[in-house]
Amino acid sequence: MKGYTVAVVGATGAVGQEILSILEERDFPLSTLVPLASKRSVGKKLIFKNREYFVKESQPAEFEGVDIAFFSAGTKVSKDMAPEAVKRGCTVIDNSNAFRMDPEAPLIVPEVNPHHLRQHKGLIANPNCSTTQMVVALKPLHDYTPIRRVVVSTYQAVSGTGLGAIKELTEQTADLLAGKKVTPAVYPYEIAFNALPHIDVFDDRGYTLEELKMDQETKKIFATDEIAVNATAVRIPVYRSHSEAVLIETEAKLTPQKAREILSQAPGIRVVDNLDKLQYPMHIAAAGRDEVFVGRIREDFTVENGLNLWIVADNLRKGAALNAVQIAERLVADNLL
Amino acid sequence: MKGYTVAVVGATGAVGQEILSILEERDFPLSTLVPLASKRSVGKKLIFKNREYFVKESQPAEFEGVDIAFFSAGTKVSKDMAPEAVKRGCTVIDNSNAFRMDPEAPLIVPEVNPHHLRQHKGLIANPNCSTTQMVVALKPLHDYTPIRRVVVSTYQAVSGTGLGAIKELTEQTADLLAGKKVTPAVYPYEIAFNALPHIDVFDDRGYTLEELKMDQETKKIFATDEIAVNATAVRIPVYRSHSEAVLIETEAKLTPQKAREILSQAPGIRVVDNLDKLQYPMHIAAAGRDEVFVGRIREDFTVENGLNLWIVADNLRKGAALNAVQIAERLVADNLL
Repeated sequence: MKGYTVAVVGATGAVGQEILSILEERDFPLSTLVPLASKRSVGKKLIFKNREYFVKESQPAEFEGVDIAFFSAGTKVSKDMAPEAVKRGCTVIDNSNAFRMDPEAPLIVPEVNPHHLRQHKGLIANPNCSTTQMVVALKPLHDYTPIRRVVVSTYQAVSGTGLGAIKELTEQTADLLAGKKVTPAVYPYEIAFNALPHIDVFDDRGYTLEELKMDQETKKIFATDEIAVNATAVRIPVYRSHSEAVLIETEAKLTPQKAREILSQAPGIRVVDNLDKLQYPMHIAAAGRDEVFVGRIREDFTVENGLNLWIVADNLRKGAALNAVQIAERLVADNLL
Repeated sequence: MKGYTVAVVGATGAVGQEILSILEERDFPLSTLVPLASKRSVGKKLIFKNREYFVKESQPAEFEGVDIAFFSAGTKVSKDMAPEAVKRGCTVIDNSNAFRMDPEAPLIVPEVNPHHLRQHKGLIANPNCSTTQMVVALKPLHDYTPIRRVVVSTYQAVSGTGLGAIKELTEQTADLLAGKKVTPAVYPYEIAFNALPHIDVFDDRGYTLEELKMDQETKKIFATDEIAVNATAVRIPVYRSHSEAVLIETEAKLTPQKAREILSQAPGIRVVDNLDKLQYPMHIAAAGRDEVFVGRIREDFTVENGLNLWIVADNLRKGAALNAVQIAERLVADNLL
């Protein structure tokens, strides 16, 4: 098997670290690792497959000879550096918001729209975490009967914000339990024992970018404008996994039983919906797992063809790093590098 | 002003304690307090308006001579004891689920349906916390144009479960931060750094009682079957206040601006919706407050007449104790005792 030269940009971040561990655990055919990050991480040591690597600064010249680069260092770094990498013959899988709505860049969830990869021009976008887990669960249902409308409320983990937010939740929680005052830094208000209906920036209609992404990205991934997503995105004090209360309205009737049957056979999904045994998907059960978990499947009695679902997945894995690595695996399998 | 003899059943519980403090802070015309609870709390000392009281066991004879009794000791105690109190001439304001759907018992939110009090027969039901805050916010909008459908996802505090749950969240959180294993007791799974899509018991269609209550109680309070509520109820690791992501579908168009204008003038509501200053309702800001806070008001672009709202209130105050005391105040003002 050929071994690829793989760069990870943002190698010291929450998603970057997850990409490294997933590349290792899935035994991705990698011959050389190029860990890149911002200036302040230069010289940091990483262990990958028992070898030592030292983080270098992300600069155009570093992408010479690189086959695949995973970008996960924020929108600005992607905008500046991803085109440089592509220019040097590298295929970029970008986890930022920089190119997701770029018509030239396919937006890929391998279980959903792998065929969109065929048109790639060197730059492939990884969807936002809250979109990815939702479309994995909705795709097989959408294939059975088209979904026309989605109403979703999210319950999102702090790890989606990054390592600083994880630290903030821990320190704030400890301080509050000790009766100390806390001063928020990463988030505008306390996140410990609180919920923030505010993820990313607001637009002038009162939506957050996170909410709009769920609509726009779903349309692009499903390649239709006939699905519309009304989202409310909320950060809650959990470390890992996002939960989503999702209502779908479908063209034809889709019973809970039929949905369970379809989802049970679909790739990347685990149905957890045994209420007699109090089994339903949860943040702590999804953390560290690859599957998208679906439960609380029940008819919405307030509309003709409505179905409620509770969708949970590890936001750093399927929501980010795992999906990116799966894209790379698919590129390799389909000879698209 | 006449002083009433007031019993509080469940005086040592989370809601009972809140009722006592609200009676005191609002200077309810009370001449004698009768604090009652279960056997194991008998003899506990309470201070009310600088006077000492000792908790007695809730028994039928204790309601002799009592004008108003607040019940907040669970459904079983209410079922057993509230009829006994009524028999003895006492007016009961019941915070349990025992009588909420009883056609003989009005289900009251003073800002919404105070006129239903006129038909009371001694027993008045206080709605479930998640319903109360929602109908306070929806009523003035419903008066402007009828709401036909509500889709709501809740973010509920552990204090709704009681003092044991508050303790469990604190201890579990501290143990997890210290790297210790935890054993859930009040909830079936860890609540610290987790979310549970499970409040109250499940029915055979996959709904929880908490979710069904929001539909049934809203219909009863609004006195119409032409409103329907599709709910997902979720417990999150916060101590106090419930948040709700609410989507309403109305008969006529209701713009965000018009909704803000209506809500700003409505009783019991505070609009917090200034996104330029990152102002929106939050658990920690609503805790200890009387108002229902509404923000994130924005059009739902996926349906003709849809509007999104983020509704937050203190679940122990407006969601329980305050609403109960406001019912009593209204009974006094309208001479309905």
